[in-house]
Amino acid sequence: MATSWLAVDPGCSFTLQNLPYGVFSHSAGQPRIGTAIGSNILDLAVLQSKGLFQGPHLRQSDCFSQTTLNAFMALGRPAWTEARARIQALLRADEPALRDNEELRKAALISQSKAIMHLPANIPDYTDFYASREHATTCGTILRGKENALMPNWLHIPIAYHGRSSSIVVSGTPVRRPRGQLNPDSNAQPHTAACKWLDFELEMAAFIGGPPNALGQPVSTAEAADRLFGLVLMNDWSARDIQKWEGQPLGPFTAKNWATSISPWVVTFDALQPFRCEAPGQEATSPQVQAYLQEPDRHSFNIQLSVEITPLGNTTPTVITRSNFKHLYWTLEQMVAHHSVTGCPMRPGDLLATGTISCDGELGQGSLLEQTMGGKQAVELEGGEKRTFLQDGDTVTMRGWCEAGGVGLGFGSCTGQVVSAHP
Amino acid sequence: MATSWLAVDPGCSFTLQNLPYGVFSHSAGQPRIGTAIGSNILDLAVLQSKGLFQGPHLRQSDCFSQTTLNAFMALGRPAWTEARARIQALLRADEPALRDNEELRKAALISQSKAIMHLPANIPDYTDFYASREHATTCGTILRGKENALMPNWLHIPIAYHGRSSSIVVSGTPVRRPRGQLNPDSNAQPHTAACKWLDFELEMAAFIGGPPNALGQPVSTAEAADRLFGLVLMNDWSARDIQKWEGQPLGPFTAKNWATSISPWVVTFDALQPFRCEAPGQEATSPQVQAYLQEPDRHSFNIQLSVEITPLGNTTPTVITRSNFKHLYWTLEQMVAHHSVTGCPMRPGDLLATGTISCDGELGQGSLLEQTMGGKQAVELEGGEKRTFLQDGDTVTMRGWCEAGGVGLGFGSCTGQVVSAHP
Repeated sequence: MATSWLAVDPGCSFTLQNLPYGVFSHSAGQPRIGTAIGSNILDLAVLQSKGLFQGPHLRQSDCFSQTTLNAFMALGRPAWTEARARIQALLRADEPALRDNEELRKAALISQSKAIMHLPANIPDYTDFYASREHATTCGTILRGKENALMPNWLHIPIAYHGRSSSIVVSGTPVRRPRGQLNPDSNAQPHTAACKWLDFELEMAAFIGGPPNALGQPVSTAEAADRLFGLVLMNDWSARDIQKWEGQPLGPFTAKNWATSISPWVVTFDALQPFRCEAPGQEATSPQVQAYLQEPDRHSFNIQLSVEITPLGNTTPTVITRSNFKHLYWTLEQMVAHHSVTGCPMRPGDLLATGTISCDGELGQGSLLEQTMGGKQAVELEGGEKRTFLQDGDTVTMRGWCEAGGVGLGFGSCTGQVVSAHP
Repeated sequence: MATSWLAVDPGCSFTLQNLPYGVFSHSAGQPRIGTAIGSNILDLAVLQSKGLFQGPHLRQSDCFSQTTLNAFMALGRPAWTEARARIQALLRADEPALRDNEELRKAALISQSKAIMHLPANIPDYTDFYASREHATTCGTILRGKENALMPNWLHIPIAYHGRSSSIVVSGTPVRRPRGQLNPDSNAQPHTAACKWLDFELEMAAFIGGPPNALGQPVSTAEAADRLFGLVLMNDWSARDIQKWEGQPLGPFTAKNWATSISPWVVTFDALQPFRCEAPGQEATSPQVQAYLQEPDRHSFNIQLSVEITPLGNTTPTVITRSNFKHLYWTLEQMVAHHSVTGCPMRPGDLLATGTISCDGELGQGSLLEQTMGGKQAVELEGGEKRTFLQDGDTVTMRGWCEAGGVGLGFGSCTGQVVSAHP
């Protein structure tokens, strides 16, 4: 396996296999595109300006000096493959072009500790799916009882709703506990107050790339693979008490429009290929899923996921969720095909989130709603504190990690601290 | 009342009182900003480049040579007021600056018949409300019966869902009948087919302007007035059979993500002031609406609305809906305050639609779903054709018109023809 002339600590997320894309700035400079390698960022705008991307799909482009990844995402798979191969070559131990050019190395390598990370893209539209069968089953059980846990449409449709893109923030941004309209005891008069049932949702989200499909032109599951640019971790912060009162008949609105955190580094599907695995069988959908949801190459990815809560003033995080992307019932290709079956245009930078990723097992629940069965059973944290929902000062951190045959890569983290509501 | 040196036909939508903003192009030129006056467009990019906007809020700006209105929207109310006063002055009969400058007039006046209209803004986020009590009551009656027509939350919350901005198109764009997943007989197996219950929804939509509120910072009803830039007509095309099967628990998704048409000319709230009227009383909300939804200056606008259907090959349109914006139970200010009560950022160019605008009376229903009570009673068109839902080739045209004390203005039209589904 190829190694880099740059030191990459064992267990580091950002290996030579990974090379995720992100938007960073440092000192007074404009945000621009970089890739993470070890504890550094390789400034791709510098490399591009020095003429180091001379392949046919990139030599005319200034995509890496943009303040978002949208232009690079729009170029499509041939450009992504070309960029990845070139960056991997420049970092390989046996390649002198960057290794032996001290001036260029100084200009192009920045310590991650000195960089500020930004949202990786301008997100034209954000969609949140509901693709985990375990999550939908537990939520349905809490709301409607075990017998009617899954809605009749759930095994046929990758259920989703349009989300709010204006409140998507990059990991590290503090999130303010929202005020809103509540009616915990559904018969009485509602009131306006700070959310009491503040929750996280462990999700991942895919950025769409390639040229947009025209209005009226669906994207098939086969075509979807070339429209999937990369993945990030997502915390879909949720105000459960607001959601309970507003949610019918049109779905969540202010319960989820106040903050959605994503990790800053977009891990590409090219990097994820060594971690492909089988997706769950869909035999439960009888007789079978609709033709437009069938896949020539159905697969998932083995991505281990965790959620930690760290209360204010506590230095020991408690891992309260362990789950895996591979459990999702609906694949990303099926999400794209369903989203666009009516001809809905998918634009570069659009974000498709999976919904909460839960699985069976003790720590498998990807939200406090599920862990506490609707706030009924408290979770114990290291040091003895208990939680049904999040308290002010709590920091929630999500991590993602892939490992196979001695090759590993990570997603870094998606973190955010809850700050108290406006009085 | 002031008149223009430019001829404006009686009954024309685009009077000197109106001066709506739009994005247009002609010949090979770039799209830019104009205002409609009579049957012409006044090219504001030309006027700006000639230095004709020298007020303090516009003299440094090139907002009118942009390809969208977002930059102008972002400038906020002082700039909007300044621009309106200046344009109105330049067009007034007694003002020679433009009237007597033939060269400038030739460069700046374009016949609307020679222009192509574009979407007025890049729409970062699109939200669709459900603000008509008559509409919500009729839909609820069709779904749940008369006794439970209004959901318990409806009188307390301006209910809404996030919509899809990628499929918003300008008036005149043909809309393709979508294919999707259907289950008209809810117990059987779903199937994939072209939508059979294709519907329109008569709506209006407000563009947000001004600098965005920070994440976590609500916008009050009092502040909302300065965040409301202008209004357009909207047809929220809906696939009722897809909606019926997918709609629970998270609301409409593919049923409404394939086309939403808006009129090209944004009529400003400054222009609408002469048509202010009382908004419906909210005594039905007991004891009263929440404090954050109360208004220092509650009002609505008297805007007459109509919908026509013209079948293919038929030259006579049938007016099948007559309604009025003033019937909406929730005001735009309440929508903004509710949307942002949790701290959701509202950005310039965001679009807030009202939901279907229905009222009592024979033609008061703003959708075929309501007119036909769920497809049960056909509507008769001129020439004898009948409709429960829309057929291929049908053109749906919406119009809006204000009149008070001899002053009138119009919204022009929002039109679209249904083309047949992909095979």
